[in-house]
Amino acid sequence: MITESQKKDLLSQLKAGCNVVISTHKSPDGDAIGSSTALALYLEQKGCNCKIVVPDPFPKNLQWIPGAEEVLMHTIQSDQINDAIDAADIIFSLDYNDLSRAGEIGSLIANSDATKVLIDHHEDPKGFADIEFHNAKCCSTAQLVFEFIEQLGDKILINVDIAKGLYTGIITDTGSFRYPSVDEKTHEIAQKLIALGLDHTGVHESIYGESSIDQLQLNGFAVSERLEVLPNGKVAIIYLTNEDLKRFNAQKGYTEGLVNKALSISGVTMAAFFREEGSLIKISFRSKGSVYVNNLAKNHFGGGGHKYAAGGSTTNTMSDALDKFKKIVMEYV
Amino acid sequence: MITESQKKDLLSQLKAGCNVVISTHKSPDGDAIGSSTALALYLEQKGCNCKIVVPDPFPKNLQWIPGAEEVLMHTIQSDQINDAIDAADIIFSLDYNDLSRAGEIGSLIANSDATKVLIDHHEDPKGFADIEFHNAKCCSTAQLVFEFIEQLGDKILINVDIAKGLYTGIITDTGSFRYPSVDEKTHEIAQKLIALGLDHTGVHESIYGESSIDQLQLNGFAVSERLEVLPNGKVAIIYLTNEDLKRFNAQKGYTEGLVNKALSISGVTMAAFFREEGSLIKISFRSKGSVYVNNLAKNHFGGGGHKYAAGGSTTNTMSDALDKFKKIVMEYV
Repeated sequence: MITESQKKDLLSQLKAGCNVVISTHKSPDGDAIGSSTALALYLEQKGCNCKIVVPDPFPKNLQWIPGAEEVLMHTIQSDQINDAIDAADIIFSLDYNDLSRAGEIGSLIANSDATKVLIDHHEDPKGFADIEFHNAKCCSTAQLVFEFIEQLGDKILINVDIAKGLYTGIITDTGSFRYPSVDEKTHEIAQKLIALGLDHTGVHESIYGESSIDQLQLNGFAVSERLEVLPNGKVAIIYLTNEDLKRFNAQKGYTEGLVNKALSISGVTMAAFFREEGSLIKISFRSKGSVYVNNLAKNHFGGGGHKYAAGGSTTNTMSDALDKFKKIVMEYV
Repeated sequence: MITESQKKDLLSQLKAGCNVVISTHKSPDGDAIGSSTALALYLEQKGCNCKIVVPDPFPKNLQWIPGAEEVLMHTIQSDQINDAIDAADIIFSLDYNDLSRAGEIGSLIANSDATKVLIDHHEDPKGFADIEFHNAKCCSTAQLVFEFIEQLGDKILINVDIAKGLYTGIITDTGSFRYPSVDEKTHEIAQKLIALGLDHTGVHESIYGESSIDQLQLNGFAVSERLEVLPNGKVAIIYLTNEDLKRFNAQKGYTEGLVNKALSISGVTMAAFFREEGSLIKISFRSKGSVYVNNLAKNHFGGGGHKYAAGGSTTNTMSDALDKFKKIVMEYV
């Protein structure tokens, strides 16, 4: 993944007194925060001065991760972030493949003379880094951070606090070891982290253990009152209006995963979730098997995406948007 | 776990032509079926004639497991089961610690002269087996079956079909690697099964991938319309009446896990689920932290159980049962 000369080069730079900035993407998730804190806790043991910088706030259920309390957010600490990037000898880009994914932090990094190191598992990195530790087949950036430390010969420095970040990244990006990207190495890493004394159940509890009653009830309501399966049994639709969302005090992230519930219904091969946001309706499409949703999103709802997961939007009313979808969907399933 | 002489003894018996019965407990779950089929597929490679016998039917989402199509059920194939146990040289008891857990099959086993081998992870086995391959700390009987095959020196015989059963047992008994009983060995086994070419995502999809719309909507309805958190924020109640259950064509198992959703609400330390069954109300209690539910179940609802999971019932009306619970629960939280 990195050449011997890159390894030597990195090891000569990552030493006591070195100023390191670790950056990650907008709307940071478990893998972004977990892999960033793990890398910082490792580099601090080597004597580096580390700052983790993120574009905007991350969810409450990640704030317990060791090191997360020192993360700087551009939305509230932009001066400190400017200073950190000015002073940086090395800047790491974690869990993103394009500087635009890091918002305004991305422009700061583009203008910096620091050595740039990418550690990422998204496809087609945009070539902004001097060193790329990259594998699009890897399940998580956290797994790559483990492998990075391993390749630098420092596996002995991985401790329980680092393990918490790495394990968080792995389980949040794999649906708890479920997705096809999980490989032998993923379980080998989990085995090693547990051997270090990691309380893996505690991590799961911290990430997934608690829900707000509003979120539970909003999702319950959506499934029991706003779910429709079309007569052919292959397409499921869920919609939520501004009024529904207000009734349950919906916060950002409350309806994440809801469209997958619709897709999980026996016989259903395509699901769509229509959600009002002010005067706009945002739509998520999911599919499986030989049914693809990217063209449907592009051709009819000004969006796009991947074969099995795409998004779009419309300024129609909810009932017009649903009618339009029901009409055109038959071409796709 | 087994002595060298037990191992020699077993290896001398488990040879070509040997008649083996593998039995498991009532209401067989993923670990019961997965570990039984895995053991059978292993022993068949050694030339044993294997019959898997279970007291009653198992869920549809386990029927794809290789070997599951040949499982005999006492409720419909009692004659074949009688014959198999009559002819058995060795009988395995998998995933239960007491013959009564195997229903009428348990009595047949008690009366048999065959060598009896227990492979189980429940506490305090009742001593009915000649050889006990037992570890109450182990996450699953499937993990023990892997270790059993390993100890007999036959790890090389574990193939992809066996891997499907073992992996099913592990993920269903650990909440997909979540519970505290998961140890280093669990991930080591997962690593080895994936190395064999196991499609682990396929197993997850088969087990958890599909739901019926009725089940989804019943659970959604329960959470959005039949959930109450008491004013102190510590106790959550869900109830479902005969009418509710009928409205969503509820089947056995449809409401499994529902009480845990109530317990997952932030601040809630005890949850109760009241479910009408004809003229009876069955109640499940769950708790966490220093709140225990076994005495509440015993003292007020003629039941009992463990500290954090107990059950009871009442012949009161639903509203009387809920009122009674709300009154007495304050002594316990």
